[in-house]
Amino acid sequence: MSDVSVIGRGITTFGKKDETIKSMLVEASRKAILEAGKPKVDAVFVGNFTAGQLANQEILGSILTNELGLGNVPSVKMEGACASGGLAFRHAYQLVKAGEYDTILVAGAEKMTNQDTETVTHAINNAMDRETNEQVSGLTFPGFFGVVANRYMHEFGAEKKHLAMVALKNRNYARFNPIAQFRKNTTLEEIMNARPVTDPLGLFDCSPISDGAAAVVIQRGKNGVQILSSGQASGTPVMQEVDNMMHIAATNESANKAYEAAGLGPKDIDVIELHDCFSMTEIIAIEELGFFDKGKGWEAVEKGLTKHGGMVPVNTSGGLLSKGHPIGATGIAQIIQIVDQLNQRACNQVEHANIGLSQNLGGTGAYSVVHIFGKKGA
Amino acid sequence: MSDVSVIGRGITTFGKKDETIKSMLVEASRKAILEAGKPKVDAVFVGNFTAGQLANQEILGSILTNELGLGNVPSVKMEGACASGGLAFRHAYQLVKAGEYDTILVAGAEKMTNQDTETVTHAINNAMDRETNEQVSGLTFPGFFGVVANRYMHEFGAEKKHLAMVALKNRNYARFNPIAQFRKNTTLEEIMNARPVTDPLGLFDCSPISDGAAAVVIQRGKNGVQILSSGQASGTPVMQEVDNMMHIAATNESANKAYEAAGLGPKDIDVIELHDCFSMTEIIAIEELGFFDKGKGWEAVEKGLTKHGGMVPVNTSGGLLSKGHPIGATGIAQIIQIVDQLNQRACNQVEHANIGLSQNLGGTGAYSVVHIFGKKGA
Repeated sequence: MSDVSVIGRGITTFGKKDETIKSMLVEASRKAILEAGKPKVDAVFVGNFTAGQLANQEILGSILTNELGLGNVPSVKMEGACASGGLAFRHAYQLVKAGEYDTILVAGAEKMTNQDTETVTHAINNAMDRETNEQVSGLTFPGFFGVVANRYMHEFGAEKKHLAMVALKNRNYARFNPIAQFRKNTTLEEIMNARPVTDPLGLFDCSPISDGAAAVVIQRGKNGVQILSSGQASGTPVMQEVDNMMHIAATNESANKAYEAAGLGPKDIDVIELHDCFSMTEIIAIEELGFFDKGKGWEAVEKGLTKHGGMVPVNTSGGLLSKGHPIGATGIAQIIQIVDQLNQRACNQVEHANIGLSQNLGGTGAYSVVHIFGKKGA
Repeated sequence: MSDVSVIGRGITTFGKKDETIKSMLVEASRKAILEAGKPKVDAVFVGNFTAGQLANQEILGSILTNELGLGNVPSVKMEGACASGGLAFRHAYQLVKAGEYDTILVAGAEKMTNQDTETVTHAINNAMDRETNEQVSGLTFPGFFGVVANRYMHEFGAEKKHLAMVALKNRNYARFNPIAQFRKNTTLEEIMNARPVTDPLGLFDCSPISDGAAAVVIQRGKNGVQILSSGQASGTPVMQEVDNMMHIAATNESANKAYEAAGLGPKDIDVIELHDCFSMTEIIAIEELGFFDKGKGWEAVEKGLTKHGGMVPVNTSGGLLSKGHPIGATGIAQIIQIVDQLNQRACNQVEHANIGLSQNLGGTGAYSVVHIFGKKGA
């Protein structure tokens, strides 16, 4: 347990945007600082993955600090592929908890839609170990998770419709999230018949290319939603080293560390935001996080256990699949949705949401970081 | 003061190398872990700037962790342009000091010589604020520091030969550093007459494009050179916002924070590694670090005060100018030279070296991070 709270949050709309990465970071950060009551900010941590390649801009820590007029406070960018936002948040939390800083602005952003798909795919593939994996196998991320999905269906009896049910659930949540990239109504049939990406994954099974930014201000004390714990684990970035492709070890191990540090378990969690980069990944994650047995996640989806009225609502923001996935922003955006749930002001509000969990994945399991939150004053 | 030590270090040769960024990181890290006595490593922090663009590889934290067989321990990459290595070290130090981890491997690397100069220049320019600076002014880093050098000479009466004296001093030190990129003897005349890069800076006034990696293991306790303090400051990345181009504020402010935290001042420092990305930058840095008054650094160089027998030897490793500048490795390599000095086993050993200082700059002053070290058992 600790004594660190999220006291402000800000987010841009997600999708294809005209704004630069700097202007998106500034927009989200200004909102977060304003909501926090304009505290003295002691450091600025930024999560980002591809800005060097896709936005022709690094030193985002310093750029954001300067643009916000925060003076000479320390700043840095952290990278861990799609977990970059969660990793920036984790290190900020650890350092506030330790007393190194009182108040930190943590922001995440990605600018991706300005580039063609081939360029974006090339940049994202830097989240694989190119030397021993990608250059041998030719895999992309949709390719990897397509392989996983086929194997999962073969081993456990799931069908393509269970993947579609995840995508539909998250789209139905996104319809009520004003910042979501995809808010249009859809049907199971439309999802099942959508253009294939990598069999069995179709267009709705894959998170989109997105622009966007998200930011939170964290501070010592109890003036907001409390950060109860953080857990992080690394995993192999090399597909051929994975013993069992049905198991994303880093997700499981990061969750266990976070549960242990908080003295809590899956049964205590009221609401989850997890890393549904693909519909298949959500099913594996609900198993790895300890909510359902291995191979039973698809049944939980079929029974509606991962939405309102079920065991634990998952991705009430719309998830990466429908809210969008501006990579560096994703880990922070997940946390914002949990904070909003615990503050009883979320889209798709969950009744009696007292404890929430966020899980942010990088690569095919190279990084996973989990945070557990408790409502203010609890 | 703290209770954290550097207990092992490893470094590759610097220069044009055949190895990949992964293999260089692994080489330096294995040496560091071996020298540290193969302790249990609790986390892996990597400093790197351009690998996404130049080496087609991100997630270096996870890749290194996996390649070293360190299991699922947390890992991350930190970026702050040329200060990336120093920033990774700083955050590792803060978290060990705080008790979050006992032992952290901090590694830095860059792979640059596999690309043509235009591609490298494009990547490095991501360390400027492109939106408000570079796209308006067309400046490169040699261009920026050439402007600074001309202005410095105009204001303070320095001449081109004083820049050359810095380059010659550092080359003369590099001759005895077995990992240095440039170890060939040279003369003031050769430096003065070298091919111009951006007037008044010639080839010897500019740090080279380099490959290389460096790593250290830090641990709670007093089993090595002690880390006495860390100071970091951000500064504007926008040239036209700088009040006084003779002043790199972040260098000064990061040093003052480190001095204050250690309860020490310039007079206590026996040996320095500082960020001589250009010969001009070394002269400004010795002023900003508090060793000489503003505008007097060139006189100190002329009098030999920054070498053996003077006031404080600077860049006894050969500095970025002659040791080489594989960007992410630089901040760690500086620390290794200071550690070696305090362990009485450095190239160009300084007598009675008890307290040392390292300073790592990012951008044109966007980041500066300073560390102060004390010898083992002091």
